[in-house]
Amino acid sequence: MNELKGACIIGQSGGPTAVINASALGVIRTALDNGNITRVLGAAHGIKGVLEDRLYDMGQEDAAELDLLKYTPSSELGSCRYKLADPDKDDTDYKRILEIFKKYDVRYFFYNGGNDSMDTCNKISKYMQKSGYECRIIGVPKTIDNDLNGTDHCPGFASAAKFIATSCMEVHRDAHVYDTGMITIVEIMGRHAGWLAGSAALATWAGYGPDLIYLPEVDFDMDRFIADVQAIYNKTGKCMIAVSEGIHYADGSFVSEAKTSATDGFGHAQLGGLAAMLAEVVKSKTGAKVRGIELSLLQRCGSHVASKTDIEEAFAAGKAAVEAAVSGVTDKMVAFKCSREGGYHCETVLEPLDIVANFEKKVPREWINAAGNGIEQPFIDYVLPLIQGEANGPKENSLPRFAKLKKVLTTSM
Amino acid sequence: MNELKGACIIGQSGGPTAVINASALGVIRTALDNGNITRVLGAAHGIKGVLEDRLYDMGQEDAAELDLLKYTPSSELGSCRYKLADPDKDDTDYKRILEIFKKYDVRYFFYNGGNDSMDTCNKISKYMQKSGYECRIIGVPKTIDNDLNGTDHCPGFASAAKFIATSCMEVHRDAHVYDTGMITIVEIMGRHAGWLAGSAALATWAGYGPDLIYLPEVDFDMDRFIADVQAIYNKTGKCMIAVSEGIHYADGSFVSEAKTSATDGFGHAQLGGLAAMLAEVVKSKTGAKVRGIELSLLQRCGSHVASKTDIEEAFAAGKAAVEAAVSGVTDKMVAFKCSREGGYHCETVLEPLDIVANFEKKVPREWINAAGNGIEQPFIDYVLPLIQGEANGPKENSLPRFAKLKKVLTTSM
Repeated sequence: MNELKGACIIGQSGGPTAVINASALGVIRTALDNGNITRVLGAAHGIKGVLEDRLYDMGQEDAAELDLLKYTPSSELGSCRYKLADPDKDDTDYKRILEIFKKYDVRYFFYNGGNDSMDTCNKISKYMQKSGYECRIIGVPKTIDNDLNGTDHCPGFASAAKFIATSCMEVHRDAHVYDTGMITIVEIMGRHAGWLAGSAALATWAGYGPDLIYLPEVDFDMDRFIADVQAIYNKTGKCMIAVSEGIHYADGSFVSEAKTSATDGFGHAQLGGLAAMLAEVVKSKTGAKVRGIELSLLQRCGSHVASKTDIEEAFAAGKAAVEAAVSGVTDKMVAFKCSREGGYHCETVLEPLDIVANFEKKVPREWINAAGNGIEQPFIDYVLPLIQGEANGPKENSLPRFAKLKKVLTTSM
Repeated sequence: MNELKGACIIGQSGGPTAVINASALGVIRTALDNGNITRVLGAAHGIKGVLEDRLYDMGQEDAAELDLLKYTPSSELGSCRYKLADPDKDDTDYKRILEIFKKYDVRYFFYNGGNDSMDTCNKISKYMQKSGYECRIIGVPKTIDNDLNGTDHCPGFASAAKFIATSCMEVHRDAHVYDTGMITIVEIMGRHAGWLAGSAALATWAGYGPDLIYLPEVDFDMDRFIADVQAIYNKTGKCMIAVSEGIHYADGSFVSEAKTSATDGFGHAQLGGLAAMLAEVVKSKTGAKVRGIELSLLQRCGSHVASKTDIEEAFAAGKAAVEAAVSGVTDKMVAFKCSREGGYHCETVLEPLDIVANFEKKVPREWINAAGNGIEQPFIDYVLPLIQGEANGPKENSLPRFAKLKKVLTTSM
């Protein structure tokens, strides 16, 4: 084993999830307990915290509060949406990162995020290799979107899926209470991949869920959509529909596009308002009473209904990252390899960072029905094991008890 | 004791809640076990089921499935929004109700609902008295709005309050993840009373909640609102706001009014879209990134995060209704009398139906801060005991297991 002593940095990036802090805890706890890691630093707001020299000394936190990160939603260290430049064109940020790494003798860097964050991680890893500065760099995946390549699934996805399935079941009951007509449209996150909207099928599978589900994997056709809804509404007086925020027409334009033109730091269109827009269209075409519901942020921060499996796997991913790095591995992302035959089994493996970067894994077309408005059983078989188990996080006065960290800046010491 | 043998009818009316079925179970279970009640009939869609002779024979249900009603959201018997005419002007419906009561020898009528439903209950009660048909009629309260007069609180309110507080805590964490500016506006139900929006203060009390809360009890002023938001945003770079859907200007017009003109069966304006509208206004005035979140139906059907206290009290209200009726009481609504000194204690009492009908109980002005943009401690002291305890309803595959009733129509026998 190639022994390397030094400090480590853990950073969180991109949109938060219900369990991203469980991964951070997996890194922090394992690193604090490891003899080769001399100091554990948490970057405030991801790579921005490195660039700005805003690093928390995680060794000063109470162990019991740290443990509560398992049940605390969102990115407790703070997150960012910061895109590093191509180092061949502008290496300013990379030089600064190297400077900070040298300042604190950082020899381990763990970055906890989705596609864009793995890209950041990959660029830093390649730069450090080129610079000849020894630093082991491992990506820890997270994303509710579940669109990372090279892994069976992503931490964070299952808890969002569980929130979506549970909420759809409850909304289904509510939307069927009157004997008058009612159409309900539920808008679910997922820019380019339909994993989350597809998970609404768990509710249908359990007995109370959407009649129709539309994913971005299939081109959307407004006329066919209206015909689908009308047919079910005419027959039953009700219709419940789940739509991904990312549904788009055959020319690639988002159905929601007309509603907004703002973009985030990565140049992605800011979606939203799709349910309300579709509700207007359906109302005008059918004359029915229509309600649009946007699950919004609730679906990605709903830690009170998180999957225990997801929490444990998120922690395991962070732990595996540290163990791999200490044993000599670098330039990898932790991934999950799972089998579902004869019971669910999941193990962590390591994939090259440049394989996973900037590729969005879609729902296989054959897991979506031929009409493109529903989900097939293989999707259920895939996602069902992931949502098992209840979080049962600690409560105070019957409200969630989140971790309260001191966040002592190294710069203030 | 004035012994009266005969069938009973239980009906559910108005908007559903997470625990209205627990009240129905309280009625059904107690009635099935009572020797004087010869048959327990569930009205399909409230009073409409009586008018249309659509009555389920509850005695044919499996006991274990019935018990699951405690954890099944929405109105399992079906609900309605049907306003009975003034009997002096048009007694058609009343004659029909009397006809059905006679047909099945109905001597007990329990109606489970909010203000409008208690009005229905009261009218039927008075008509039966006038007609000389002996039938004991008791209202069983429910409403997430918590605006029924004559009771400390209403079953259904606390579970919605708990969903709102929990969700606001989680959203707060999510909305504070980036070091860039962000304003978050959460729209909460409550047409004329601010009990639900006020409950968002529980999240703030617990450490992570709205900075500003606006209730319909205080006239809304858009300029003051913008100034409030701007002040907090300028200072912290963030601002989280909870607004009741029913906020209105000094002239009484709803802030959301311009957005919709549809009305429901009772002539109430259909509100919604307020968060999106306020987000647009705040964005244009502050230039900040603003997100509007409407909790929508989720807040009233979120049985997975229901309050155990609420479930038990909802059941107790149904049970008390049957016990009172069997003992000779009629023309009353079950209410709660509570004390909070030296620990929370709640008991069921009976109030005259015509006292509770058509009066909306508001949040006391002194429980709202002087500026009209926040909540004082007495509100917290009032609501906190009500949300205690976890529902922990049964799960199947880690998803809720709702009651599956057979719903055998008496007419089909």
